Amino acid sequence: MRETKRGSFTLPGESGYEELTLNLAERWGADVIRDSDGTALSSEITEAGFGIYSTICLIRDHNEWANAHKDQLQQTFLVTEPRLAISQEEPFSISLMEDFYEDQFTINDNPESLGYWQVYDRTENKEIVRSSWTYDAFTGRVRLIEFQPFHQYTVSFFAYRIWEEISMYNHVTNNWDKEHLMPLDPRHEETREYLYGWLKTWCEEHPATTVVRFTSLFYNFVWIWGSSERKRNIFSDWGSYDFTVSPRALIEFEQEFGYALTAEDFINQGKFHVTHMSPGKRQLDYMAFVNRFVVDYGKRLVELVHSYEKKAYVFYDDSWIGLEPYHENFKEFGFDGLIKCVFSGYEARLCAGAKVDVHELRLHPYLFPVGLGGAPTFCEGGDPVRDAKEYWIRVRRALLREKIDRIGLGGYLHLVEGYPDFCSYIEKIADEFRRLKSFHEDGEVYCLPIKVAVLHSWGKLRSWTLSGHFHETHMHDLIHINEALSGLPVAVDFISFEDVRQGALKNVDVVINAGAAGTAWSGGNEWSDIQVMEDLSDFVSKGGVLIGVNEPSAIEGYHTFFRMSHVLGIDKDTGARVCHGRYEMSDEEVPGLIPTGSKLRKGKNLYLTSENTHILAMEEQEPVITYHTFGTGCGIFLSSFQVTNENTRLLLNLMLFGQKMGLDQKYLTDNPQTECAWYPDSRKLVVINNSELVQSTCVKTDFGVSEIRLEPFDTAVIEF
Amino acid sequence: MRETKRGSFTLPGESGYEELTLNLAERWGADVIRDSDGTALSSEITEAGFGIYSTICLIRDHNEWANAHKDQLQQTFLVTEPRLAISQEEPFSISLMEDFYEDQFTINDNPESLGYWQVYDRTENKEIVRSSWTYDAFTGRVRLIEFQPFHQYTVSFFAYRIWEEISMYNHVTNNWDKEHLMPLDPRHEETREYLYGWLKTWCEEHPATTVVRFTSLFYNFVWIWGSSERKRNIFSDWGSYDFTVSPRALIEFEQEFGYALTAEDFINQGKFHVTHMSPGKRQLDYMAFVNRFVVDYGKRLVELVHSYEKKAYVFYDDSWIGLEPYHENFKEFGFDGLIKCVFSGYEARLCAGAKVDVHELRLHPYLFPVGLGGAPTFCEGGDPVRDAKEYWIRVRRALLREKIDRIGLGGYLHLVEGYPDFCSYIEKIADEFRRLKSFHEDGEVYCLPIKVAVLHSWGKLRSWTLSGHFHETHMHDLIHINEALSGLPVAVDFISFEDVRQGALKNVDVVINAGAAGTAWSGGNEWSDIQVMEDLSDFVSKGGVLIGVNEPSAIEGYHTFFRMSHVLGIDKDTGARVCHGRYEMSDEEVPGLIPTGSKLRKGKNLYLTSENTHILAMEEQEPVITYHTFGTGCGIFLSSFQVTNENTRLLLNLMLFGQKMGLDQKYLTDNPQTECAWYPDSRKLVVINNSELVQSTCVKTDFGVSEIRLEPFDTAVIEF
Repeated sequence: MRETKRGSFTLPGESGYEELTLNLAERWGADVIRDSDGTALSSEITEAGFGIYSTICLIRDHNEWANAHKDQLQQTFLVTEPRLAISQEEPFSISLMEDFYEDQFTINDNPESLGYWQVYDRTENKEIVRSSWTYDAFTGRVRLIEFQPFHQYTVSFFAYRIWEEISMYNHVTNNWDKEHLMPLDPRHEETREYLYGWLKTWCEEHPATTVVRFTSLFYNFVWIWGSSERKRNIFSDWGSYDFTVSPRALIEFEQEFGYALTAEDFINQGKFHVTHMSPGKRQLDYMAFVNRFVVDYGKRLVELVHSYEKKAYVFYDDSWIGLEPYHENFKEFGFDGLIKCVFSGYEARLCAGAKVDVHELRLHPYLFPVGLGGAPTFCEGGDPVRDAKEYWIRVRRALLREKIDRIGLGGYLHLVEGYPDFCSYIEKIADEFRRLKSFHEDGEVYCLPIKVAVLHSWGKLRSWTLSGHFHETHMHDLIHINEALSGLPVAVDFISFEDVRQGALKNVDVVINAGAAGTAWSGGNEWSDIQVMEDLSDFVSKGGVLIGVNEPSAIEGYHTFFRMSHVLGIDKDTGARVCHGRYEMSDEEVPGLIPTGSKLRKGKNLYLTSENTHILAMEEQEPVITYHTFGTGCGIFLSSFQVTNENTRLLLNLMLFGQKMGLDQKYLTDNPQTECAWYPDSRKLVVINNSELVQSTCVKTDFGVSEIRLEPFDTAVIEF
Repeated sequence: MRETKRGSFTLPGESGYEELTLNLAERWGADVIRDSDGTALSSEITEAGFGIYSTICLIRDHNEWANAHKDQLQQTFLVTEPRLAISQEEPFSISLMEDFYEDQFTINDNPESLGYWQVYDRTENKEIVRSSWTYDAFTGRVRLIEFQPFHQYTVSFFAYRIWEEISMYNHVTNNWDKEHLMPLDPRHEETREYLYGWLKTWCEEHPATTVVRFTSLFYNFVWIWGSSERKRNIFSDWGSYDFTVSPRALIEFEQEFGYALTAEDFINQGKFHVTHMSPGKRQLDYMAFVNRFVVDYGKRLVELVHSYEKKAYVFYDDSWIGLEPYHENFKEFGFDGLIKCVFSGYEARLCAGAKVDVHELRLHPYLFPVGLGGAPTFCEGGDPVRDAKEYWIRVRRALLREKIDRIGLGGYLHLVEGYPDFCSYIEKIADEFRRLKSFHEDGEVYCLPIKVAVLHSWGKLRSWTLSGHFHETHMHDLIHINEALSGLPVAVDFISFEDVRQGALKNVDVVINAGAAGTAWSGGNEWSDIQVMEDLSDFVSKGGVLIGVNEPSAIEGYHTFFRMSHVLGIDKDTGARVCHGRYEMSDEEVPGLIPTGSKLRKGKNLYLTSENTHILAMEEQEPVITYHTFGTGCGIFLSSFQVTNENTRLLLNLMLFGQKMGLDQKYLTDNPQTECAWYPDSRKLVVINNSELVQSTCVKTDFGVSEIRLEPFDTAVIEF
């Protein structure tokens, strides 16, 4: 299905490889050429008639200014590993930097900073009074004057970050030998205005650039490196705002919110606050504070770019903190485009759903010798075609459901030279992408009349993603659910518990709550709210479907662990019910409901709370899928969820079953290895093969039943 | 190794089978004949020159008195399943008895009882005021006057127990067709004196009886049966005191302890209080209250029996509640013997350790058509020799460590008629038992210089057992540990957290803490006590070994989940550390430490807290066994423990390793399928084969190395 149409493709050009750049631009139908971190574009490229994206990471690459204003570097709170005091006879002191990567951090011990430092007795879980410890700047150690033997102590302190983390990662990965770039903090007015001026000059000096591609804004997600070779990564969370903090930020926060934050509000016993755990009020306040700052300053920069008649796109990754595409204030930035790097379907949906003119995907693999996980890509042992295929198969099904405007690549173009198969495969992808996009342009895709709301602590703010890529979050059931949903013909929304209280269940058919107890995805303490429980019960009793996965609605302290056990008909014993009897179980087969090959990991210590709970699947006497009628609706429980072709169809089937709709709906394939999308306006049916084998499938349409045979991974388009 | 010595064996005789009884008494070397529940002894048996045990279950088999004093039946608190209120437009009432087995319970709605009833809104976790509900005795329902839609409600109420539970179980299991025996509550003075008088008469009328075998005392462990065939067992806990409660008991408790208990103190949100969970103060107070009562009345009965020049033995099972062999007041009863039914080594040790003259084991299988788990024994499909062998192999190794005085059987003797192999095997066991016993009589067994203290919430009170038999508690690591310890050549003690505070670690070499978080075995809230943490740290720092299994010292709220992580060098992430880096791991082999075939179930989300934690075994990148030096001692962590021959040796090896002792100690076999015991005074070495295969093993002794070859399951005795 060769498409001759060009465009909607961004190619990473490379100075010194002009011929390769222009040749591949032709083959892949590129209309835009971009630079990347570590590459430049020559005038031969910039003047060849393409749109030009210029990548800018505003806060780094100003080392001269940074050296002259070291107090305006970005910072973070660090906490030492807990240190054990042994004997009161010996002095006890703690080295602050011992655990940390010295190329990344340096202690900020200026007076403004020192006021925020805290020493904690972690054994007793209490702060040590300031008069009981001293800091020696020469040795970089805190000495405790009073301490108890066998108690563990930590020091929380401010550190400047002296190596911008993405640059640091690229540097280390590629063994670069150049100056370490320091990250500047625009929280300081002087730096803010310096950077503004710098961007102004830059715009003036780059007339060929049509799009300024911000990578991204000001603050990176948290990525703390350690001194130990055996534990280089101490903490990294793609969704954490902790790299925005500084004494200045805390002072301004206090002025704005009327209360002071402490180091411990960030350190949290050394656990920090991962996005995967339910956030508290202080954390949310601080995020709102930073978000406001990023929007305000970001907006000024976008306006500046616009004043030079360039577009402003933002790459939503790396220094993205404060930029929340699903926040109501996102539109204030005025960005013309949002670029998301994608491995998965849910990331494509994340991008597609943002309120911005141009939605662009940067596909993987990145043109780097090694991939993100450290595995070889464009070097010995790598297989970039296999990688590209794997990611494309995941992304394609999402592209059937929502329109994406552009795709592209990034990295060092010259690396593809030894990989002609890769070049051909990208050619195929580019054409396929443009064709799928054209179907959306002809009219809306058909969707089943099912509105799904995924319920978790973050709600809309963290639509589709949890905290980064799939391979970083695969241990959470919800990312598997989101990935399955990303290509299903249902409407999907993400709601918070506050949304439930505000009536969000009114227009919903299916609510999904999926995660481990205490996590943001299950909801943690949110489940102590009676109103949420009542509203959700009411919703189901009137015909709604609640799908609970793993430890849905779980919280300790009540008669059941799952607060919605009366709806789900199942609960989990956390120990106290080990001597309670359990209903004898037998599973009941619902024809066609569970696709052949579908399998979920079983749970542990689950027990039925009702005689009327139906076991749809079980394993070793543990229920795996259950169904329980509640009023005119029902609760469906899954012990876990892992995304596979079969389980994706299982999820859809369960929604249809819960809604009392037949499983043999029109415009669904009858083979779970395949999926389809129906574009009624152009009367086009797209059928895709998500497997590496030849597949046959039937699709019931308004025009009879179509039978389609698909080559491995292939796409077919049938016109009626 | 045929022994001609007779004695130390109790045979269950059976009227109508006199020849069989006397014949087997001769073959098995019985010196005592007993009756059982459902059998009688004829004068031909009682006058044949044997000691005679007569089984008495004092509180049942008085139905005439019971019918005339129905208010003096035993009681319990019951709680309905949570019932959901749907709409305020419809009346909402709860049937009290709907969930329960009507042959076991009947509502006690007399005024004294009603004052203790409670209606709870379980959704809000609060009691409903008394004025908001009414009880209709005719329908047996509680009607709620005020309630909230979608909230769940329960009623807690007193019920009389109208069928004594062990009798009920035997009745149902054997399809008996006779009157249901009701349990009387000696808490009522009238009943107490009636039963005393009855026992007096009984003693007068049974001159042939040499031993009154109480089975057991007054109160059964909790065993609540339900109305549903799919969930006949609602709750059963061998260690729970809940079947002792009554309005009268609560009034007396309040008088004695100065505060009142409520139904909720027993019901606990419908969870009750299983022995496997850490007990609270109110629960412990109530247990002390009941224990005092049982000791006082029990003592009177024993004195009565003694006044007839009979011995008083007690069978420690069934109605054992209040009889605590490891309580300091146990000696007050004045019992002459303690009889324990055993499946396992730890049960033999439990019996052997009680301060009483005669320690007797009742072996399994019981002479019943079916065994405790409902599996066939003396009926089609049964293999009683296999069963006897299995249990004997488990028990034998404990008999090497501590002296037991007698063994015996129970049940219907006639059932063995079709099983000549079983009769021969019991003959072999009886001889073997007498021989092992004789070695203890010649002097103490040799023990390694290792004193082990198992640390849990119950301490000494629940030495060896958790709450019943192995097959009832196999999901807890500790029962596997206890079973392994029961035959190891080390001294074993059980200590509580209070014991630690009182200095119990002074004479200890190894502390074991094994269990899931929140359980009594791990310790739950006990771990918030700083002193325990300090004392244990001090103990290890001075050379002690802490062995932690599963979730040792685990409690939420601190910087680590395992409070002793600084000693163990390992911790478990409960969700908040999912984005923290972890030390890369590699396992280090210590020659001979982990026996071939040893394997433990891996844990989940474990992470090393120290760079100096050594991985002794790992699986799929999860640490399974770790070792961490702390001062001059160490912490050893095991992700779980399952008792097998290999793992039992592993446990011993870890203790030796932790104590920096060589693994090749004298008087240890070098083959983990075998074990041995050395009796220095008689210079006898007993070597046993715990496997079903022929085994060879070497034992280093003071007289050189002995090599021994053993038939499957066999015992060898070598004299030096």
